[in-house]
Amino acid sequence: MPRLIQRRSLKTGQPPGTLIHVGERKAEEITISVALYDATLLEERRVEQISECLPPVDETLLTWINVVGLHDPAILEDMGQCFGFHPLVLEDILNTEQRPKMEDFGDYVFIVLKMITPNEEGELEPEQVSLILGPRYVISFQERQADDFQPVRQRLQSGGRLRRMGADYLAYSLLDTIVDGYFDTLEGVGEQMELLEEELLAQPTPATLQQIHHLKQSTILLRRSVWPLREVIGALERGETPLIQDATQLYLRDLYDHTIQVMDTIETYRDMLSGMLDIYLSSISNTMNSVMKVLTIIGTIFIPLTFVAGVYGMNFQYMPELSWRWAYPLVWLIMLAVATVMVIYFRRKRWL
Amino acid sequence: MPRLIQRRSLKTGQPPGTLIHVGERKAEEITISVALYDATLLEERRVEQISECLPPVDETLLTWINVVGLHDPAILEDMGQCFGFHPLVLEDILNTEQRPKMEDFGDYVFIVLKMITPNEEGELEPEQVSLILGPRYVISFQERQADDFQPVRQRLQSGGRLRRMGADYLAYSLLDTIVDGYFDTLEGVGEQMELLEEELLAQPTPATLQQIHHLKQSTILLRRSVWPLREVIGALERGETPLIQDATQLYLRDLYDHTIQVMDTIETYRDMLSGMLDIYLSSISNTMNSVMKVLTIIGTIFIPLTFVAGVYGMNFQYMPELSWRWAYPLVWLIMLAVATVMVIYFRRKRWL
Amino acid sequence: MPRLIQRRSLKTGQPPGTLIHVGERKAEEITISVALYDATLLEERRVEQISECLPPVDETLLTWINVVGLHDPAILEDMGQCFGFHPLVLEDILNTEQRPKMEDFGDYVFIVLKMITPNEEGELEPEQVSLILGPRYVISFQERQADDFQPVRQRLQSGGRLRRMGADYLAYSLLDTIVDGYFDTLEGVGEQMELLEEELLAQPTPATLQQIHHLKQSTILLRRSVWPLREVIGALERGETPLIQDATQLYLRDLYDHTIQVMDTIETYRDMLSGMLDIYLSSISNTMNSVMKVLTIIGTIFIPLTFVAGVYGMNFQYMPELSWRWAYPLVWLIMLAVATVMVIYFRRKRWL
Amino acid sequence: MPRLIQRRSLKTGQPPGTLIHVGERKAEEITISVALYDATLLEERRVEQISECLPPVDETLLTWINVVGLHDPAILEDMGQCFGFHPLVLEDILNTEQRPKMEDFGDYVFIVLKMITPNEEGELEPEQVSLILGPRYVISFQERQADDFQPVRQRLQSGGRLRRMGADYLAYSLLDTIVDGYFDTLEGVGEQMELLEEELLAQPTPATLQQIHHLKQSTILLRRSVWPLREVIGALERGETPLIQDATQLYLRDLYDHTIQVMDTIETYRDMLSGMLDIYLSSISNTMNSVMKVLTIIGTIFIPLTFVAGVYGMNFQYMPELSWRWAYPLVWLIMLAVATVMVIYFRRKRWL
Amino acid sequence: MPRLIQRRSLKTGQPPGTLIHVGERKAEEITISVALYDATLLEERRVEQISECLPPVDETLLTWINVVGLHDPAILEDMGQCFGFHPLVLEDILNTEQRPKMEDFGDYVFIVLKMITPNEEGELEPEQVSLILGPRYVISFQERQADDFQPVRQRLQSGGRLRRMGADYLAYSLLDTIVDGYFDTLEGVGEQMELLEEELLAQPTPATLQQIHHLKQSTILLRRSVWPLREVIGALERGETPLIQDATQLYLRDLYDHTIQVMDTIETYRDMLSGMLDIYLSSISNTMNSVMKVLTIIGTIFIPLTFVAGVYGMNFQYMPELSWRWAYPLVWLIMLAVATVMVIYFRRKRWL
Repeated sequence: MPRLIQRRSLKTGQPPGTLIHVGERKAEEITISVALYDATLLEERRVEQISECLPPVDETLLTWINVVGLHDPAILEDMGQCFGFHPLVLEDILNTEQRPKMEDFGDYVFIVLKMITPNEEGELEPEQVSLILGPRYVISFQERQADDFQPVRQRLQSGGRLRRMGADYLAYSLLDTIVDGYFDTLEGVGEQMELLEEELLAQPTPATLQQIHHLKQSTILLRRSVWPLREVIGALERGETPLIQDATQLYLRDLYDHTIQVMDTIETYRDMLSGMLDIYLSSISNTMNSVMKVLTIIGTIFIPLTFVAGVYGMNFQYMPELSWRWAYPLVWLIMLAVATVMVIYFRRKRWL
Repeated sequence: MPRLIQRRSLKTGQPPGTLIHVGERKAEEITISVALYDATLLEERRVEQISECLPPVDETLLTWINVVGLHDPAILEDMGQCFGFHPLVLEDILNTEQRPKMEDFGDYVFIVLKMITPNEEGELEPEQVSLILGPRYVISFQERQADDFQPVRQRLQSGGRLRRMGADYLAYSLLDTIVDGYFDTLEGVGEQMELLEEELLAQPTPATLQQIHHLKQSTILLRRSVWPLREVIGALERGETPLIQDATQLYLRDLYDHTIQVMDTIETYRDMLSGMLDIYLSSISNTMNSVMKVLTIIGTIFIPLTFVAGVYGMNFQYMPELSWRWAYPLVWLIMLAVATVMVIYFRRKRWL
Repeated sequence: MPRLIQRRSLKTGQPPGTLIHVGERKAEEITISVALYDATLLEERRVEQISECLPPVDETLLTWINVVGLHDPAILEDMGQCFGFHPLVLEDILNTEQRPKMEDFGDYVFIVLKMITPNEEGELEPEQVSLILGPRYVISFQERQADDFQPVRQRLQSGGRLRRMGADYLAYSLLDTIVDGYFDTLEGVGEQMELLEEELLAQPTPATLQQIHHLKQSTILLRRSVWPLREVIGALERGETPLIQDATQLYLRDLYDHTIQVMDTIETYRDMLSGMLDIYLSSISNTMNSVMKVLTIIGTIFIPLTFVAGVYGMNFQYMPELSWRWAYPLVWLIMLAVATVMVIYFRRKRWL
Repeated sequence: MPRLIQRRSLKTGQPPGTLIHVGERKAEEITISVALYDATLLEERRVEQISECLPPVDETLLTWINVVGLHDPAILEDMGQCFGFHPLVLEDILNTEQRPKMEDFGDYVFIVLKMITPNEEGELEPEQVSLILGPRYVISFQERQADDFQPVRQRLQSGGRLRRMGADYLAYSLLDTIVDGYFDTLEGVGEQMELLEEELLAQPTPATLQQIHHLKQSTILLRRSVWPLREVIGALERGETPLIQDATQLYLRDLYDHTIQVMDTIETYRDMLSGMLDIYLSSISNTMNSVMKVLTIIGTIFIPLTFVAGVYGMNFQYMPELSWRWAYPLVWLIMLAVATVMVIYFRRKRWL
Repeated sequence: MPRLIQRRSLKTGQPPGTLIHVGERKAEEITISVALYDATLLEERRVEQISECLPPVDETLLTWINVVGLHDPAILEDMGQCFGFHPLVLEDILNTEQRPKMEDFGDYVFIVLKMITPNEEGELEPEQVSLILGPRYVISFQERQADDFQPVRQRLQSGGRLRRMGADYLAYSLLDTIVDGYFDTLEGVGEQMELLEEELLAQPTPATLQQIHHLKQSTILLRRSVWPLREVIGALERGETPLIQDATQLYLRDLYDHTIQVMDTIETYRDMLSGMLDIYLSSISNTMNSVMKVLTIIGTIFIPLTFVAGVYGMNFQYMPELSWRWAYPLVWLIMLAVATVMVIYFRRKRWL
């Protein structure tokens, strides 16, 4: 079942801006990779010390710093001081129970997002991704080792539009990768729904109900992440910050349409799941009812017959029928007649 | 059952603007038909090469290019270069899982729509139709061979207002044809609902439930296409682009009213289907209940009688009643009396 | 059952502005009545030819043309030419599946409305009424002969404010009559609901359910007409057209309040009908349950007793009880005791 | 049950501004009381003739005219002429099926409200109260004798802020009294809900359901009055009329908060009632189910035993068991064993 | 069960601004603690007389006055006079059934909030907290002794940002503490929901239903407090008052995001609880149905067998079978065959 209940009690009572990592530790160690590039040049390396990722002196190069693993507040603190980030930004990066949002601090834009991907058991799991977009740099923070940004790295290596455009286009590419991830996740959910629907029409079991419930919770989880994501991308697209150039805005508009489409699909899934729940409930009660009906009818037919048999099992001395020659076959005839009449009646009433 | 779950996983990880056809291949081969016309002249032909559909040199003629079949990205790419379309436009045309939308690129307006028509089995199937409206041309892209735009072609041939007005009126005519298609589809759905309602009041079966479910999914599919369609036509009608002339705006306002009416009808259908589901469920349980009631009553009347018969079937040596002369008829009388009293009681309680 | 499903397939594929009558023919013949009036003078006549209803030469008189019956497009076409109406207006008048709306064409305002009145069988039936308000004339189109505008005609004859004020006040009076009609219709629906509620609390039957369903559909029909009606009157009241004078605006504000009240009542009815459905379903299952309970209890009490009787009906040679002197009365005592204990137990558990 | 269905058919077909009293006659006779006051002076009297309540000559005094009973249109007409009110205002005062609203006529503001109070049987009953606020006077119209404005009268007599401030503050005080009345009514409803909830958890009966239904209708009635009330007070508070002074606006803001709180409470009650309905339905079916289960189990245990007894009641000549010495006790043992095994099985399955 | 029904009938009929304490007396005695501080200095003391908490003469110090216990209106009245607060402010502080709101009086801002914390029995209980933010002071009013503001007091003592910034930052800190309290409360609710979900899937009982109902009411209570809280913080954040400085606004924006997150979590919980209710109801009826089914089947198999036994228990003189040598074993065979056929049939129909 997807985890919908959040924990952040460590935070209570702390002054704002206190750096505490809220959430599970999902990466073994913290890795910081830096890419410096322009249209002609690309230099990638892994750094260990924070002094290495100071803003590049050579102002013609763009910088992408990718931080994986958030369990060491010290690294964040160093980075915060070296780039001059507001303490609340650093606090939000570490608090992985954050709601997606965008904040414009003038010099830089801070974006928090959620990636939702199935884990090994097929459960949807949210991962918080934070981006800081500055004039010539993008810093991204991930909780997990999983290389979600691999496609962007490949495109960076193979040159092309990404290398020719600014830091805002790099940020767009990262966002685009995240939104594409939602399409994949939704496709997985959709496949499960199709299987479930077939099962539902063939032979519904209580397990079917639990799966519907499970998928419903998945859509709740997805919805909770995508609604604010839409607002974030909408705000970027409306060009509320000068850090986004006009050429990139067109791409963000396209991305905005994609998030709308994601929302739309989630809402459709919710509608479908409600419909499936209705179908489940009524087919369960249909089966139940037809079972009960047939069984009750069988019982009902034999009850009067048993009564007749009981009557002639009585031991009264004066029961003239008992000594009649054809009484026994006659009783059989009567009983057959009663049974036949009842079956015909039930048939006519369409109860059988 | 209408297909509500989308597939676009091919796209994941591709840079934006990559031309990949997403969706089923619905047309055998790609056909490109071109119509050049003004108030006095009409020239129609089929072209095979893209160089043939360059913007007309003779600037007094209007051009309508209709492309059927989308499985060859190369043709789109050529066209994109020759008209100077943004790569995202071409990508959106090929991705048939698009949500209806309108985008204004200054020189041209890009519109994506859905036609929803029943296929041979009566299932509703969406088809994506894209339109590009330029100052003196309209390019339309369809997935399927089905000649949905036949009425427009006929009107073009027969002359009249369509020939006298600009490219925007041609685009309007194509949109109008699509919205008319929704009315037809809705009429079909409405007829199915009427049949279903009659069936529901006469003799509901589990198949009735499945049909209700099916129609509900049809309305979900329709709704998902019409909501954004309304926004698209609303945006065109508000004259947000200079490519739409004032004379055409009146017609678009009329068209906007039609889409509102389509929405309205869909919402009414949804309301009606919910009502029908309620009726179904309660009539099923009504039937069930009345069956159970009658059967239980029959059983209940005979149980005490069988008990009486059982008592006098006991083999005690000292049972004075057994040797009474009139015991047997008396027992019959008692049993008849008990049965009669119970029937009267059940009648009075209105259980029978 | 009110007709909720619309038909307009004749329209598909026709160019916009094509004059086709969509809907049933509800009037035997087309009648055109003209009233020319000012504060001192009133002239009423019936005309047959359209040339007779040209705009009055004498510019001091106001004109009200009332057209009943829409099945002859030719008459509309003539009128359109003579007053210079836009083809779309004429198309909308003939298409009686229109949604209520107001359109301002500068010289004149075009208004489409629905009247919903019960027919002879008590079914609600919509009738489309179109109004065209010009500077000094009002033209009204009705589908049916029923003289819905009789009160306005009487007030016109008896003089008073209506004769002293402009064409806008006449249009207001017609609208007011239509909204008053909704109050009457709602009162009828309300009376049915009161009867139904009494029936529901006394003795609900499956027919009660069908009536609830029926009334629900009536409210759907009403709602679908009144929502857009409210927008129409709201737009008129906000003075979006110079054809409405300030003095009339006060009256329109009052009328707007009335439509809000109509909406409000419809919503209340919907709420009440949902509540009635809940009551119906739970009272049905309550009755059912109490029937089943009592019957099952009767059965349950006799089953152990019948078992006891069965035991002493066995034919074993060595059953010492059979030859005991007081065995038979003892068995009766035991059976009575068992029955009494069970009744007491059921009572205590409040199952009886 | 609160009266939710309105009657106003008398009005149909009447020209706007016609004075007809719509509603029940709730007061025996019409009483008109006048209070003239300023900070130092208070003069109260009852008048019978309308000429007596002309606007006060002495312009330093404020006037409050309170009219109880609306069944005589003549009095209203006189008052309308003497103060110069618009005919629609007078019509609205008499039509007690009005929706709460505020209308600004420049010289005076017209306010229609509903008071909802329980009558002697505890049923909620709406009463329409109309207020006309002029520059130096307030006229209030009530349907019923019940002295709802007694607290205001007392404060007027005891001096204080009310005597020092203008007519707008008097109008505010009357509105405040009405909103306070809603709190009282809601408290009564809340108390009924608490009793009902206890009953629901202890021993739900069909009467509980009817009470839930009843309370639900009460909240519908309250909601229908309070929603527009909130708009009315909101409009006054936003200072849309110059008749409201700045000092009073603060008090109106407070009053506005109170109406929000009333709304809020009503919505909470609705939520709670839905929850109670759910609880009711499932506890009814829980009880039912546990009854049926235990009874069916009892029946089921005895059915196989009765079968065994039946077998040895057969009269075949060659049934060796019948002559065995220990057959009878053995059969008893077998039957006991079967019963025990079944009870254990049912226990283990948690059916008992 | 959380208390959702409010009482404030004492207020009815009182003039606005009357100081009456509405609510339970939750604190034994009233304690007033005063803190005077700037970046270098902190002086804390408890005062008993109101004259002691006059605005500080030394204008460089900030003042925080915390009042616990509201049952003595006299203290409030004194404070009101000494700071010059509007009577409505004092009334609202004493009326603990207030809805969260913010009011700007120019010189000071008045804020009413709710804290919702579990009491000893784990029931959620609301406590009203009022804040008055002046240019250089903050006054806070609590109902209960519980030291909810302890973290703020500690931060004040330990120096840091709180000591260096203005009164608005102190107010922010208090608000932040309250919002953090909501996270704690929600975490507790979430833990209960997780336990409940496990119980629901393992072994649902009627107590499970009551707990779902209980948690639902908790979310209603929380929601009712958090919705207006969000508006309050939103209004502060939008800088609608000059008392909030720019530096603090950033922190308020962060706080606003937190309230959105609280709302979001509450809505998710509501969705989850609805889902749990569905699961509960259908698993109850599933269990029920499978019980009934198995039991009915057992009954049904034995009924025909008992009938057969009954037949050969009849006492007719001429029943040839009775004297057949192998009749008895044959009957056993027949009965076994019937039972086997029925079991196989039920199996094949998947009823067993």
